[in-house]
Amino acid sequence: MLGLLNDTSPQWAALAREHLDVLLADHAHCELKAAQSALSLLARFAGEAPELTAPLLALAHEEGAHFAQVEAELQHRGLSLGLPATDDYAQALRAAARATASGEPLLDRLLVHALIEARSCERFRCLCTALPSGALQDFYRDLLTSEARHFALFYRLARNRFGHARTRGRFDVLRLAEADIAAGLGHTALVHG
Amino acid sequence: MLGLLNDTSPQWAALAREHLDVLLADHAHCELKAAQSALSLLARFAGEAPELTAPLLALAHEEGAHFAQVEAELQHRGLSLGLPATDDYAQALRAAARATASGEPLLDRLLVHALIEARSCERFRCLCTALPSGALQDFYRDLLTSEARHFALFYRLARNRFGHARTRGRFDVLRLAEADIAAGLGHTALVHG
Repeated sequence: MLGLLNDTSPQWAALAREHLDVLLADHAHCELKAAQSALSLLARFAGEAPELTAPLLALAHEEGAHFAQVEAELQHRGLSLGLPATDDYAQALRAAARATASGEPLLDRLLVHALIEARSCERFRCLCTALPSGALQDFYRDLLTSEARHFALFYRLARNRFGHARTRGRFDVLRLAEADIAAGLGHTALVHG
Repeated sequence: MLGLLNDTSPQWAALAREHLDVLLADHAHCELKAAQSALSLLARFAGEAPELTAPLLALAHEEGAHFAQVEAELQHRGLSLGLPATDDYAQALRAAARATASGEPLLDRLLVHALIEARSCERFRCLCTALPSGALQDFYRDLLTSEARHFALFYRLARNRFGHARTRGRFDVLRLAEADIAAGLGHTALVHG
């Protein structure tokens, strides 16, 4: 799915359904982090790659709107947002990208973003199969299409700038690392837990 | 002006007019930093203060749009955005807020944001008087009203949560520190230089 080399264990979806308070609070923070990361990419790379500006501002805006939606869902359920948790998965993926650096920091960053969006999409699909029919399942079904669209955006931004072959080659390295990291997960109800 | 205790020296506006390449690139990054800071405030405080979410998301969106406008102006002039510079002024103000911490980190953060917006507004007013009539002067005249509105937003968010007397008392401490920091500036063409 979206280039991912393995699937999340069904155990994760069961955990997430059982601990929706943990999942929703972490998910809200994931949306904010995605918006913040998009702006960080611009701060670092918009000078050399001005074509990033319009799509990444639109993305940040959309992720911010998703944050507000998840926060409203938390409030509706009387749950607390709390403070953001460290995303060990994303940190490990960034570390893997640095350890195998391609020499093109922007290429690496775009593909790390692409993979995080792809995994989030796959996670939300798992969650949809575990959730009962209803508004929350519908919400996550809508969201997983957004995550797939964001994956495609980051991949396309990379390919347009660095070419098909180079992007594909680098993606193949990073998705192996991603699958390795993801294989060790599934033990918490966090979005990337 | 907006609670500030001193004015920027006319020398700064002359420098900024002379080095519009420096001013515009720094200004673009200031807008991005403002958007990033608004999201950071949400990540840290939306749990305890959910009333921040809607206005700070709207603010981040607006600052992002301003970034795109300034970046377009840079491109129109054949100038480069480059990488973000450290904002020594904002860092010094945050350090002053920490050194005199009120015990309410959100109050302190909101008022630091308010003061940065106020100073940016005052700086853009100076710049308008130095720029020749035309599109760029019009642009900065529009922007200075946005900065004034953002000052009012941050101050109001603080007052609504912490009350008039406490907000005013803390603002009086911080604006003294701000004036002290601002008095040492004026030697570069940076927005807060």
